[in-house]
Amino acid sequence: MGLLIRSGEIVTAADRYIADLYVDEGKVLAIGANLEKRGAKDEVIEASGKFVFPGLVDPHVHMALGFMGTVSADDFEAGTASGVSGGTTTIVDFCIPPRGTPLLNGLEEWKARAKRSVADYTCHMAITGWNDHTAEEMRRVVEDHGITSFKVFMAYKGAIMVDDGELYQVMKQAAKLGAVVTVHAENGDAIALLQQELIAKGDTGPEYHPVSRPSSVEGEATNRALMMARLHGATAYIVHMTCREAVEALERAKLSGQHCYGETCPQYLLLDDSVFAKPDFEGAAYVMSPPIRPAHQGHHDALWRGLASGMLDSIGTDHCPFTIEQKRMGKDDFTKIPNGAAGIEDRLQLLYTYGVCEGRFDLQRMIALASTNPARIFGLYPRKGTIAIGSDADLVVYDPAVSGARSAKTHHSKSDRNIFEGFKVRGAPTHVVVNGRVQYANGALKVERGAGRFLTRAVTRARSEATPRPAGAALP
Amino acid sequence: MGLLIRSGEIVTAADRYIADLYVDEGKVLAIGANLEKRGAKDEVIEASGKFVFPGLVDPHVHMALGFMGTVSADDFEAGTASGVSGGTTTIVDFCIPPRGTPLLNGLEEWKARAKRSVADYTCHMAITGWNDHTAEEMRRVVEDHGITSFKVFMAYKGAIMVDDGELYQVMKQAAKLGAVVTVHAENGDAIALLQQELIAKGDTGPEYHPVSRPSSVEGEATNRALMMARLHGATAYIVHMTCREAVEALERAKLSGQHCYGETCPQYLLLDDSVFAKPDFEGAAYVMSPPIRPAHQGHHDALWRGLASGMLDSIGTDHCPFTIEQKRMGKDDFTKIPNGAAGIEDRLQLLYTYGVCEGRFDLQRMIALASTNPARIFGLYPRKGTIAIGSDADLVVYDPAVSGARSAKTHHSKSDRNIFEGFKVRGAPTHVVVNGRVQYANGALKVERGAGRFLTRAVTRARSEATPRPAGAALP
Amino acid sequence: MGLLIRSGEIVTAADRYIADLYVDEGKVLAIGANLEKRGAKDEVIEASGKFVFPGLVDPHVHMALGFMGTVSADDFEAGTASGVSGGTTTIVDFCIPPRGTPLLNGLEEWKARAKRSVADYTCHMAITGWNDHTAEEMRRVVEDHGITSFKVFMAYKGAIMVDDGELYQVMKQAAKLGAVVTVHAENGDAIALLQQELIAKGDTGPEYHPVSRPSSVEGEATNRALMMARLHGATAYIVHMTCREAVEALERAKLSGQHCYGETCPQYLLLDDSVFAKPDFEGAAYVMSPPIRPAHQGHHDALWRGLASGMLDSIGTDHCPFTIEQKRMGKDDFTKIPNGAAGIEDRLQLLYTYGVCEGRFDLQRMIALASTNPARIFGLYPRKGTIAIGSDADLVVYDPAVSGARSAKTHHSKSDRNIFEGFKVRGAPTHVVVNGRVQYANGALKVERGAGRFLTRAVTRARSEATPRPAGAALP
Amino acid sequence: MGLLIRSGEIVTAADRYIADLYVDEGKVLAIGANLEKRGAKDEVIEASGKFVFPGLVDPHVHMALGFMGTVSADDFEAGTASGVSGGTTTIVDFCIPPRGTPLLNGLEEWKARAKRSVADYTCHMAITGWNDHTAEEMRRVVEDHGITSFKVFMAYKGAIMVDDGELYQVMKQAAKLGAVVTVHAENGDAIALLQQELIAKGDTGPEYHPVSRPSSVEGEATNRALMMARLHGATAYIVHMTCREAVEALERAKLSGQHCYGETCPQYLLLDDSVFAKPDFEGAAYVMSPPIRPAHQGHHDALWRGLASGMLDSIGTDHCPFTIEQKRMGKDDFTKIPNGAAGIEDRLQLLYTYGVCEGRFDLQRMIALASTNPARIFGLYPRKGTIAIGSDADLVVYDPAVSGARSAKTHHSKSDRNIFEGFKVRGAPTHVVVNGRVQYANGALKVERGAGRFLTRAVTRARSEATPRPAGAALP
Repeated sequence: MGLLIRSGEIVTAADRYIADLYVDEGKVLAIGANLEKRGAKDEVIEASGKFVFPGLVDPHVHMALGFMGTVSADDFEAGTASGVSGGTTTIVDFCIPPRGTPLLNGLEEWKARAKRSVADYTCHMAITGWNDHTAEEMRRVVEDHGITSFKVFMAYKGAIMVDDGELYQVMKQAAKLGAVVTVHAENGDAIALLQQELIAKGDTGPEYHPVSRPSSVEGEATNRALMMARLHGATAYIVHMTCREAVEALERAKLSGQHCYGETCPQYLLLDDSVFAKPDFEGAAYVMSPPIRPAHQGHHDALWRGLASGMLDSIGTDHCPFTIEQKRMGKDDFTKIPNGAAGIEDRLQLLYTYGVCEGRFDLQRMIALASTNPARIFGLYPRKGTIAIGSDADLVVYDPAVSGARSAKTHHSKSDRNIFEGFKVRGAPTHVVVNGRVQYANGALKVERGAGRFLTRAVTRARSEATPRPAGAALP
Repeated sequence: MGLLIRSGEIVTAADRYIADLYVDEGKVLAIGANLEKRGAKDEVIEASGKFVFPGLVDPHVHMALGFMGTVSADDFEAGTASGVSGGTTTIVDFCIPPRGTPLLNGLEEWKARAKRSVADYTCHMAITGWNDHTAEEMRRVVEDHGITSFKVFMAYKGAIMVDDGELYQVMKQAAKLGAVVTVHAENGDAIALLQQELIAKGDTGPEYHPVSRPSSVEGEATNRALMMARLHGATAYIVHMTCREAVEALERAKLSGQHCYGETCPQYLLLDDSVFAKPDFEGAAYVMSPPIRPAHQGHHDALWRGLASGMLDSIGTDHCPFTIEQKRMGKDDFTKIPNGAAGIEDRLQLLYTYGVCEGRFDLQRMIALASTNPARIFGLYPRKGTIAIGSDADLVVYDPAVSGARSAKTHHSKSDRNIFEGFKVRGAPTHVVVNGRVQYANGALKVERGAGRFLTRAVTRARSEATPRPAGAALP
Repeated sequence: MGLLIRSGEIVTAADRYIADLYVDEGKVLAIGANLEKRGAKDEVIEASGKFVFPGLVDPHVHMALGFMGTVSADDFEAGTASGVSGGTTTIVDFCIPPRGTPLLNGLEEWKARAKRSVADYTCHMAITGWNDHTAEEMRRVVEDHGITSFKVFMAYKGAIMVDDGELYQVMKQAAKLGAVVTVHAENGDAIALLQQELIAKGDTGPEYHPVSRPSSVEGEATNRALMMARLHGATAYIVHMTCREAVEALERAKLSGQHCYGETCPQYLLLDDSVFAKPDFEGAAYVMSPPIRPAHQGHHDALWRGLASGMLDSIGTDHCPFTIEQKRMGKDDFTKIPNGAAGIEDRLQLLYTYGVCEGRFDLQRMIALASTNPARIFGLYPRKGTIAIGSDADLVVYDPAVSGARSAKTHHSKSDRNIFEGFKVRGAPTHVVVNGRVQYANGALKVERGAGRFLTRAVTRARSEATPRPAGAALP
Repeated sequence: MGLLIRSGEIVTAADRYIADLYVDEGKVLAIGANLEKRGAKDEVIEASGKFVFPGLVDPHVHMALGFMGTVSADDFEAGTASGVSGGTTTIVDFCIPPRGTPLLNGLEEWKARAKRSVADYTCHMAITGWNDHTAEEMRRVVEDHGITSFKVFMAYKGAIMVDDGELYQVMKQAAKLGAVVTVHAENGDAIALLQQELIAKGDTGPEYHPVSRPSSVEGEATNRALMMARLHGATAYIVHMTCREAVEALERAKLSGQHCYGETCPQYLLLDDSVFAKPDFEGAAYVMSPPIRPAHQGHHDALWRGLASGMLDSIGTDHCPFTIEQKRMGKDDFTKIPNGAAGIEDRLQLLYTYGVCEGRFDLQRMIALASTNPARIFGLYPRKGTIAIGSDADLVVYDPAVSGARSAKTHHSKSDRNIFEGFKVRGAPTHVVVNGRVQYANGALKVERGAGRFLTRAVTRARSEATPRPAGAALP
């Protein structure tokens, strides 16, 4: 059964044009003027006056994450459903094997949890330590399992943090394999001591969370990670960048010719650290790392400018909700508040409203940041990340004429808080198509647990793809 | 009569994918898997194993330019034909009314010359002075004539150079009109004096041309032009950038959030100033302004890095050939050598070979730089600059498997020199489609004088295009 | 008759130490522990608990300046007396011949006015145009008259502004002569047009003065002046720098190895543009160019940091007072308000209070900025600018224990306003010695019209002074 | 018995002037014109045509250092004698207690070795680990022992390297105490792995030493150390900076207002990595860390420019010689070559010749870099570091008219190699006065073992020294 989307304005990372779109068997088959239905049962969506976006790719989510003594509130079913309702049809989660355990064991467990997904998924493989087997395990992860990106944490000392020697090894092996290394860049040693000092002084509330993680420690670690990548010719991707110092470190690297990437998230663009002062422990809902930054220090501007100038490449969400009940684990000690919040469902409307409508970047750039670039960087492209013949039929019909507000009351995440509560938004998805099937239509979610597929990914070396494929050849 | 291009790998600024393409009545009508001919007479091109690019847009050419006492060697027919054979199907020429003459008079004359074009064309309107009528003339140029970009020269003192007061006025009025200001950025006062001193010393050969225009005067003028634009919120586009100092000035502006653009040309990427030392006055063939820069000062790297990092946006050619006979006007005085060289036909193959195949940027970025970005910046998009439903059927089928070398012996320009003589190239256009008609096929040029159309252009304010058009609405 | 200063803490650009100091015949003759009077009539100043500074050098003053249709309120007698009472014992004024008149004629007139000075003086020679005689006139100014620095104005279009060609010529000839070029760096073309527009709109009050001269036009001109100097290997000294953009341009030049200097003034460090909003035309008292800058844009921090980091070299005053009556010439048009204010008498106390006591720089750095560096840069050193054997006995005994406030009621300038009115200050000069004679003691000024001497100056090329002089050789 | 130095040109960090100088009881007592002998036995040095410098302070030496399984070749007697013959009269050595041992034990042992010194000495206290006692031990080192600077090594993993947590603690406690933290900034984790890989590949020769320590690891660590200092408001002093990346990190910190310092050494200015290719293991003589850098990468220029612009503050030597016999410990493994070379004796002549005579900085700047700044930064000033009344009579009479070459054949170090072998030098000390006594005269060294004194040092907070001392008060 095919699907015909008529007269929408198709938007890709480069283009916007009005056309009809025909999809079947989960693929985009034709784009043209005045396309016809091919079968009698073909569904038709009239999209005149609406945008048709490629399904968004979220390069940074944590579903069912066991972390800080609890498990994040959205399992893969709930989290991907929340994503679909917000226009995100592909996620890149994280497989984080405990320090000292084999990567492939971790992967098996992660896959067991992930198979409940309603939309397609993959993961970055976290490296949380280094031993004699790790290099070979990394090779198998890439070559046997199609997971072509890794993650290292330079923070969370005593848990999943790697030291500089381990960081070196990961970068070296990743470079050899052609894999991308995603990096949580904060100086974990400094943070651990700042936390100890604050707690020792009795500064235990959530408002001390940002005090324990100043922007300078993020800037420093970003600079260090980029040096380690440069040393080996590895491709680094700095996740959830929040501050001026980090953006400047990335700018220095990019302008000197280094091949590297930066990601930020809507919360770092739109919120400031006044949220931590909310009464009744509500500030805990905003506790995540790196922390939301102070206004008036240039951080927010640096991020917006980075998105517009091309210095930042990607916008993820770091979706990782915990209920307020879970957050209470840190009632007497902010270091014990589970870090994270929901966001996968809010991203598209926030970027459209505060990015595009405010004139900070255009529609094509929004699609590049939230769909095409994540897909290309992480080897999902052209299957994901665009609207093109042969690509997966993941599509969002977006009506720019409606308006509303984000709220925990209406979102589909299991989180009982929405950190963007009350944020006005312009436009909304009217239809979300996943693998050719309409799974969200006019407010109604029609997803199916387990419909999502694990995506194997290719190694990408974007700059050397000079050879065209013969007709019929597999997508790279 | 339609045209079906089968199984090529379509490349846009964002995408590459294999599909069939159907065009008719000069427009792209359908893109899809397994498209059929619609009419019996439809032409078919088998493009398996080949790329299909949107026709290139050259944002910087001078056909039939009266300059320095002579006229550039390619008229519009020859120049656009040379372009078509090299994959360029749209040109932005310059209308340069003499100082003190009405802009619209100049436009009429320019149009008279331009109507011989074999491919579509438009122009930037040069402002070479300022009087009480100029602001109103600028308004009419934009609003009545669809010419939405201007040009100022900060060099060529005593001829077409504007002073800072004039530059100020142009930027101010352009900002009001939403027009782009393209800028030749060199400090003309300094150059005029450096020239005088060299000639007075008897340093009259072409090897003194670069000495008279050091990179620092380009860097300075770039910084100045960008300040003038910032002062008024105007959009500046710096043409033919050649050096590190200029790129750094643009980087500073962009990273601080200014909306501005930079262009370079293949000759500044691929040649160095050793060319001026060629014997028998052959160095004169390379005389253009700004000059080709010394190796080993970081200029070439700065340009390549700028193209990859997004700091530079566009690659033009400054196509403006003069024969060696014409060049001899400056035999005894390099300041009298007509400035310029051919390049429109060489651009695509050079960028593919030395940009893409050398891994400096990918295919999509090449198309962005040489087609999509010029089209978008100058209001030709989406009619030009991409392969999308409704866009003009300007297409290049490019066979990456062949190889050759650039040479004056085989090029179609009337220039008797090719500044890239002997440069090895990979790939070549096999077919070039202009407005739906195959005008170049397997080495044979089948163009028709006057087939080209004058393109009226819209004012673009890229960052605020948030409103989707209803179906059927005119392209913006 | 000698003078013995006992037990003061002597401060130079490098050192601070307690010693006695003996001077006679206008020179410092001995520094030591337990020095004795040499003659019975020798005067003695007990300076225990006080500082002894070298007399300050003000590199930037305008006495009796004919400007904007009037004459600045302090003639050389009043102005230098005001300086002496504030610890400044040497001034560098400006000789500004009208455009088109011979430099040497101007110099004669300037000397006639200057000979009323109570302290030693010299001037920078302004070049306000260029003709066939100017290069030779510059040579004579330097070689015959011992005036080894020039001044160019990149602002004041239509009056004393030079264009880029003239700037080029001045830099070139100054480089040849080894002279320093001091530069008023603002883009005068832009300012002239901004002024016209404001006046045309009826925005005529003093609060529009800063609007007509935004910081970006200063940053641009600074960058341009430095490029012109670099082109010829000339030494540029940017006067009265006020803003972040200008400091950044200077930083770029210095860090890339260029030999250049920057000056700022207390008003740019301590005042912000709220002063222009004072009622009853009192804002006019603060009208000077470049204007005092807005708070909260980083300008003040950039200047303070530049002074501490070594990027700025010198602090002058641009002393050029006009009475409020004179200011009223611009009652209906801010462009007609005579530009300038008093400052020569305030500098030392302000720098001590807001620079040293606030911990922004140390005592030695203060002396470097306000005395030694101006003396060295302009060829007055070691005669002026330090306390060393053989140097002129220009000395300030400064008591840090007292406190007070700056005020027009108590200052010695003829200006009826003090732009630092009410500013609290720590410390005050108790004695000021000029050429070995105590001319200010405990509040009483004992100066003598005409006691000041015209100082001929040597060409300095600081970096190549590697050769020691034989004993008895003249100071360089 | 006093000493009169007649008619020399005295040079300080700020001044140069011709005067007589009288010293007695180890102090400078008088500076003046035509001073007389005070006692019949007073010695007289005629210094006309010569310079008189303050004795140089070497902020970075290692005498009798137990390191890498051996002991550096110069004990304190030999090393300080070598220093005196080269114009250095004060050293700051390093006390490096093994990891896990009490600082004060280490200090006792260090003092036992150091008391053989022929000139005055002090040390930086190295912190090579952190435990519950370290903060208190640091306090005692500063407050009870007058050692007001610390040293941390970010390299030498597994030996004396500190990790980021330890670095944090040292910076925090040093900030509390007002002490300076000197930092060896290289990423030790990366280096350890690079070394392992090279050795494993059989790349064991000294030419692989620089390969194992690329400049990027130094730049990174410099950036990290400065961040750690900024976090606590500590004063960091980066020792032996060698490369562009490190200078740029320091520039960023300084221009943003951070209070920090940078040091380099003559070998990094004057040698390039071609030295490692010398045959017969002679390259080992040049093995030190960080390594001598490649030519043509901008490192040498960055250092020279930093010295001239004020971004670098100090020039030490890292004097730490090992004989070629000792170097042979690393014959089969470059990581076992004892790191270090002689340099204390060469510094003054090299800086005079290649810094001052080449026009890279002036005489006063040379004295600032090699004497005054080290003295001020480390709390030895004004007792050391200048020629002023009350300062120690450490003086160098330098004859600029002679010329020669540096050589192991003539130097006084026990090292059998001189890394500047054959370097031409201009000028030489004719007399070196230590504490008022002539200890080197016309080539003859007359030093006395144990004559040197341990110098206790004050905490300096240069920027807040606003209060003058009363007469007779102790030097700060």
